Amino acid sequence: MYKDNSTEEIDRVMQTAWRAFHQYRKLPLSSRAAFMRAIAVELENCGDELIRVAMTETNLPETRLRSERGRTIFQLNSYAAACEKGEWLEARIDTAIPDKVPPKPDIRKMLVPLGPVVVFGASNFPFAYSTAGGDTACALAAGCPVIVKAHPAHTDTSTIVAAAILTAADKCKMPRGIFAHVYGAGFETGKALVLHPHTKALGFTGSYTGGKQLFDWGSQRKEPIPVFAEMGSTNPVFLLPERLKSDVAGIATLYAGSINLGVGQFCTKPGILIGLEGNDLQTFVHDLGKAVSQVNPAPMLHAGIVQAFKEKKGTALLQEGVHLVAESELWQSHSETLPKLSGIPTLATTSAKTFLANPILHQEVFGPYAIVIQCKDINEMTEVAKQLEGQLTATLMATENDIRDNEALVEAIHNICGRIILNGVPTGVEVCLSMHHGGPFPATTDGRFSSVGADGIKRFARPIAFQNWSNTLLPDELKNENPLGIWRTVNNELSKDSLDL
Amino acid sequence: MYKDNSTEEIDRVMQTAWRAFHQYRKLPLSSRAAFMRAIAVELENCGDELIRVAMTETNLPETRLRSERGRTIFQLNSYAAACEKGEWLEARIDTAIPDKVPPKPDIRKMLVPLGPVVVFGASNFPFAYSTAGGDTACALAAGCPVIVKAHPAHTDTSTIVAAAILTAADKCKMPRGIFAHVYGAGFETGKALVLHPHTKALGFTGSYTGGKQLFDWGSQRKEPIPVFAEMGSTNPVFLLPERLKSDVAGIATLYAGSINLGVGQFCTKPGILIGLEGNDLQTFVHDLGKAVSQVNPAPMLHAGIVQAFKEKKGTALLQEGVHLVAESELWQSHSETLPKLSGIPTLATTSAKTFLANPILHQEVFGPYAIVIQCKDINEMTEVAKQLEGQLTATLMATENDIRDNEALVEAIHNICGRIILNGVPTGVEVCLSMHHGGPFPATTDGRFSSVGADGIKRFARPIAFQNWSNTLLPDELKNENPLGIWRTVNNELSKDSLDL
Repeated sequence: MYKDNSTEEIDRVMQTAWRAFHQYRKLPLSSRAAFMRAIAVELENCGDELIRVAMTETNLPETRLRSERGRTIFQLNSYAAACEKGEWLEARIDTAIPDKVPPKPDIRKMLVPLGPVVVFGASNFPFAYSTAGGDTACALAAGCPVIVKAHPAHTDTSTIVAAAILTAADKCKMPRGIFAHVYGAGFETGKALVLHPHTKALGFTGSYTGGKQLFDWGSQRKEPIPVFAEMGSTNPVFLLPERLKSDVAGIATLYAGSINLGVGQFCTKPGILIGLEGNDLQTFVHDLGKAVSQVNPAPMLHAGIVQAFKEKKGTALLQEGVHLVAESELWQSHSETLPKLSGIPTLATTSAKTFLANPILHQEVFGPYAIVIQCKDINEMTEVAKQLEGQLTATLMATENDIRDNEALVEAIHNICGRIILNGVPTGVEVCLSMHHGGPFPATTDGRFSSVGADGIKRFARPIAFQNWSNTLLPDELKNENPLGIWRTVNNELSKDSLDL
Repeated sequence: MYKDNSTEEIDRVMQTAWRAFHQYRKLPLSSRAAFMRAIAVELENCGDELIRVAMTETNLPETRLRSERGRTIFQLNSYAAACEKGEWLEARIDTAIPDKVPPKPDIRKMLVPLGPVVVFGASNFPFAYSTAGGDTACALAAGCPVIVKAHPAHTDTSTIVAAAILTAADKCKMPRGIFAHVYGAGFETGKALVLHPHTKALGFTGSYTGGKQLFDWGSQRKEPIPVFAEMGSTNPVFLLPERLKSDVAGIATLYAGSINLGVGQFCTKPGILIGLEGNDLQTFVHDLGKAVSQVNPAPMLHAGIVQAFKEKKGTALLQEGVHLVAESELWQSHSETLPKLSGIPTLATTSAKTFLANPILHQEVFGPYAIVIQCKDINEMTEVAKQLEGQLTATLMATENDIRDNEALVEAIHNICGRIILNGVPTGVEVCLSMHHGGPFPATTDGRFSSVGADGIKRFARPIAFQNWSNTLLPDELKNENPLGIWRTVNNELSKDSLDL
């Protein structure tokens, strides 16, 4: 239906984005924020039609899509507020000391945009991490034009959202080229976008294979560029003994919900649960299995996702030492009425020894599947934590005693994750400044940055220092009188004051 | 004299560093700062012997080395102060909103260290950007153990400084492995360090070839790691017409000094000066050439540097359309008494047309050499700015009128550099928070970070978010009562207050 854009077309898009960059970057923060808020309004204006199209393309239910659009609008508005507030600029001023030997010049620093940013959206978040999603909002806040490659699994949805963004750009009199929407089902379009010399950064949410390929292309360019790929995670959950004993049934219910939320199609789905061998864990596995067996299978995002789920789950279950605990019984009894593309909720278990020896079991199975790892003792649990790859999240189900008594374990868990949850579930990523959605490789390609929360703006900016500039020639952000009223670090002290020079 | 460490030895060093990491990261900020200050004291304690050895190894004069040691001590002390002050931690707190649907959990975020950092020092800064230099100080402040590969050109100096660091570590009861010093004249040691799985980041200051190789190794690891390579720059200086006319002789004198400072061996040496054809520029070239001809040749750092200088300068001068303006006459008349390894101050000139067509002329010539580019008009000067590669610095010699009348030029200059100087010289890099010593590739491999100033600490850290942790279990930095008294962003507002929860 949509023809892939040719390399020549990509070049024209990037040239236009490059020209737009030099106009957009000079606009005041308030204009960027106004543009972002206008996009939020246009998203709302897309009305029911957008929800209907997204439902058709993604199999996601209406309530979920409505709330995801709400989240996307919230992101645009809250990052717009952060953009205007200007703390992300990291404005720093050191005033001159002419008497010093040699004289110390006046130096002032702030973040400026990198340049055009290419965004590859997520299949599982058709709004919040796609066309007008978090990466786009962060890049626009930073002062960067955005080029979105429509996700092949929800191209119509993406096209409607892109039109909304362009309407907002028009209403806000943004420079032509501030936003572009391109199509590419094959890898050539993506590659051309990454390799184009005017592309200065990349945002991606999706699989390890896709993200790592983009990272490699980005790093191997003549001029390497930052690639922020969020590539998923198994989100290990450590069940500590005192806490587990206190509420086996409650924790099983909680986790049956989290594992199967949205048909397990969240990058924060808990895929690995680690406990200590014994009666409590046995009861837990039994209870969790029973709960999983009562979860209704539901259609997954698209045929490719179902296929991958079946294959990865199948491979995991075939590994020696892995035991199937439960599959949804609602599937077994009603297979003839099962909706097309359904993902069957499944729970497996194995020993820590088997897990430690078999890297296949460390891989994410995207969908409603989890495996319980049974450890002989806390040392073995610590060994599992040490051997796990980088994760978006890790969760401790633990009492204060559990935490205090197992310092080495807690330390090892800290070391592998971007967010550490105590007595909760990893699903549900709050959009706020303190959120970190990122983690050591391979959870992301750069664990130093977050793709959720306004700190994500910093992914697309770099500092520039102005030395010995007269006040009138400085950008407003750095002027003596602090006309924007932003926080700045002046001679090593945070302040909103104007400078009396 | 020093045997290269074997791959097995490197492995042992990295294993020890990894163990030290897990102890060091948990120490309070005040202990890290105390260790850094102790290193500063031990550096001072090295006394005249360190200066004497460094003079022998680097050919740098005594006054320069004494002041560089002072700078290194200042760096350690000022980054220690920044470490304790804790603003670099980017502490963020969002308190719970239990009534929200779904309930909003308590989330708190701060930066934590990446892990062991490998530092490759600079030949031109045997103290300030070597063994106990900026990268080491930043990594220690961030909470990372440091492994320094001794620079082959000043191994004795590095060995003395390493011993001072180990003495300080001992006095401060730091974990064994917090610092290690290894030797490797060949590339194998460096490669083994970069590829070791326990290496989590890299700091480097040196040539493009060296830095880019390290970046490639770092990016192509199974687990890619951040590589901060500062790879030099030509530091273009744009001579705008009104400013040049006002003080041709003064600017020529100023730049003769900057080009030849430290025998041109600074990564901020101005290597390219760009002006508009005409009488003023002609006079400037004449005056600058005259001044250069009166600069005494002086010995460069080592034989490899002199050789590279001669070759690169020779190649540049051989390019069609390039004219030699002046060489030091003090060499021509006294060649028999010329110190060994001398770099001969040299000035060349060419047209913008020649410059734009020949990428060889864009390359840094490390040493006392500069070339004046003569442009037909401001448009051609803007074209030069647009075509220049990423730079650590760019300088505008300009009046306010010059700036206001040439927006496109100023815009293009902003876009290529990390620091933009008005009516000054790029040499002299102030150590302060507002300094940005970094710039778009190929000036550095990551223009988003600085290798000078306390913001450089952030190169070696990543955020971690704590969700739903009880106050007693949180790190001090994030506790309600704010026991460290640091700045934190609490529910979107910067504050030093304690939380009344």
